[in-house]
Amino acid sequence: MTTTDPVAILAALIRCPSVTPEEGGALDLLQSLLSDQGFSVDRLPFQTEGRPKIDNLYASAGSGGPHLLFAGHTDVVPAGDEAAWSSPPFGAKVRDDVMVGRGAVDMKGGIAAFLAAYARCVEKHGRLKGKVSLLITGDEEGPALDGTVRVLDALDQRGEKFDACLVGEPTNPEMIGDMIKVGRRGSHTCTLTIRGTQGHVAYPHLADNPIRALVPMLNALMDPPLDQGSERFQPSNLEVTTVEIGNQATNVVPAEARAVFNIRFNDHWTAETLVEEIERRLAAAAKDTSLRPGREAIEWQTDWVPRVSEVFVTHDDHLIGTLMRAVESVTGRTPDLSTSGGTSDARFVKNYCPVVEFGLVGQTMHKIDEQVPLADLERLTRVYERFLTAWFAKESPS
Amino acid sequence: MTTTDPVAILAALIRCPSVTPEEGGALDLLQSLLSDQGFSVDRLPFQTEGRPKIDNLYASAGSGGPHLLFAGHTDVVPAGDEAAWSSPPFGAKVRDDVMVGRGAVDMKGGIAAFLAAYARCVEKHGRLKGKVSLLITGDEEGPALDGTVRVLDALDQRGEKFDACLVGEPTNPEMIGDMIKVGRRGSHTCTLTIRGTQGHVAYPHLADNPIRALVPMLNALMDPPLDQGSERFQPSNLEVTTVEIGNQATNVVPAEARAVFNIRFNDHWTAETLVEEIERRLAAAAKDTSLRPGREAIEWQTDWVPRVSEVFVTHDDHLIGTLMRAVESVTGRTPDLSTSGGTSDARFVKNYCPVVEFGLVGQTMHKIDEQVPLADLERLTRVYERFLTAWFAKESPS
Ligand SMILES: [Zn+2]
Ligand SMILES: [Zn+2]
Repeated sequence: MTTTDPVAILAALIRCPSVTPEEGGALDLLQSLLSDQGFSVDRLPFQTEGRPKIDNLYASAGSGGPHLLFAGHTDVVPAGDEAAWSSPPFGAKVRDDVMVGRGAVDMKGGIAAFLAAYARCVEKHGRLKGKVSLLITGDEEGPALDGTVRVLDALDQRGEKFDACLVGEPTNPEMIGDMIKVGRRGSHTCTLTIRGTQGHVAYPHLADNPIRALVPMLNALMDPPLDQGSERFQPSNLEVTTVEIGNQATNVVPAEARAVFNIRFNDHWTAETLVEEIERRLAAAAKDTSLRPGREAIEWQTDWVPRVSEVFVTHDDHLIGTLMRAVESVTGRTPDLSTSGGTSDARFVKNYCPVVEFGLVGQTMHKIDEQVPLADLERLTRVYERFLTAWFAKESPS
Repeated sequence: MTTTDPVAILAALIRCPSVTPEEGGALDLLQSLLSDQGFSVDRLPFQTEGRPKIDNLYASAGSGGPHLLFAGHTDVVPAGDEAAWSSPPFGAKVRDDVMVGRGAVDMKGGIAAFLAAYARCVEKHGRLKGKVSLLITGDEEGPALDGTVRVLDALDQRGEKFDACLVGEPTNPEMIGDMIKVGRRGSHTCTLTIRGTQGHVAYPHLADNPIRALVPMLNALMDPPLDQGSERFQPSNLEVTTVEIGNQATNVVPAEARAVFNIRFNDHWTAETLVEEIERRLAAAAKDTSLRPGREAIEWQTDWVPRVSEVFVTHDDHLIGTLMRAVESVTGRTPDLSTSGGTSDARFVKNYCPVVEFGLVGQTMHKIDEQVPLADLERLTRVYERFLTAWFAKESPS
């Protein structure tokens, strides 16, 4: 296989059915390709008790500084209804210069483009002045417990240091060149439990309906909005994702009400100040007895999930500027610097070095007939190649 | 068995394990006792498709007018944890002049007292001038589909007419003489379904969270209160009994929210005006987009249960006055004329004739160690005896 050709690499990767948490041969294939390119390759499997073992790969070429990390994942979401696909989801069929397959854009295509870009750099300029590494996980589409977060921790213990990281997730809403992601909102999730007193609906004075407290408490979570957004970020947003009472008897006032909510928060907040604000709102609303005349404040409790994704934004002019210029020169478009959307493994990387994300167009990701135009794959390869060349040109060690 | 002795009758009734919907021998026993007293006795079983057959009893003595109906039920709620009872729930054991047993106050005791009162009347004064009937159902503690409502309909088709009805349910909160019930609030139940748009919590502008509409809609149901009560009635009251979303994924905005609520309503309302008011409130709140900025009114739907219990209050001076004086002369207490509490089979009777309710003390009903002091049973028998005598004395046919 010519490693300067992203189409060949991507086709081979798609044909590995690496549906999360299966390795599916995808990391083996990368190991072989990277070894051919002179990378030293490590496999770093991890396993959380009660969960399947997850395979991960870490590969490095070159030495000294600066040290650039490319991060991504080979695991993919399930194909769904295979009969609904226009060609087999793990077939990598090309029709009208478009390749169809699960993972085409999220994100085997990004990995293929990076490998090809690296091979082209080396072909043109010889070895880069510094060190290039790849961290490819098999646990991004799953719970992400035994993937990037564990590998980074292990590398840190080994003393590995990175100067910057490029994540190859699909970041462009419509066309290559639309959007670079320079941060992500944080995410935190909480279960609110409210305890009232069970009773018969005909004797409401003997009961204390927790739903009469739930309504003002949920209202307080959503109103007023947490903030109006910031320079780099959309407004923080809270969504109540479920309310559960589980009472079948229409003549019974329930004893307990539970609600779950998730907050996507911007750089107005840390997880700590956010939790403080939410608890403050809930405490105030728990005393609101407008729907419970004559009662005491209701008994309530919050259970926040143990793992929170902190908000981050990257401030690294060389990293962002180099990537922007590479995008502009290849695509003719000036990308938005955005922090929108969900979380990605960049949330783990940001604890070690500045991180940006740029990849393919995300429109078909996770859908039937996930696909990539071959022209997009070529464009991304050229962006990565220019970025590699320029980033190492400036940061070459003194 | 001496039919003037309510204790013997009640003990025999409690020993029939007539846990709803089982007849348990209780109606057979009554049939035998009533036949001995010269009643003609009918059994009127009914059955709703998919449900067990329900047995009911209708017995009459005398002829002409006036016609007094005594209504009650022999079915009882389950005993619960029998080991927790101080004596067997179907044993009718007497200790310290208190009889313990399921149904002791709700309401085999009321039936026993009425039978004994009737026997005493006849013993003292001979046959009453008019007609006395008993409607005893086996489906009051169950769904009440095949009990009093069906028997009354069948009797109506036969041409039976009643001038007044006394229901023997336990009406006294603490002591015999506390309370006569002269009406009941209505009851109506509704399921509210709100339809939003499912989506990912990180992209809330692509979703429309129905919980953001649910909160103001539930608030509108509870605030402002429906009314402040009326001369005869407590305020109407609405309780939301459950909210169900059923969404497990904390990163997903749900598509639909459902809530169920029950309203106990007074004579400010009919079921029709009440439904109008609730739908008016919901329609207004569905347009409240304070938690859904920039959206349209949410899509919503109400499903009211097909069977509503209408509110009623009895205006029959002779019926209420005679019962009040009987209570006062036996107990020395002036009973409250109340419309409080839940529904009873009086809601069916009120469509045919004026109805009042007076019986034992309700404190232990439906509980472990349900019990009646023998002195209460004797007091109630005397109240019923005086009532029978006085009611027929005035209303004797011309
Ligand atoms: Zn991805
Ligand atoms: Zn009862």
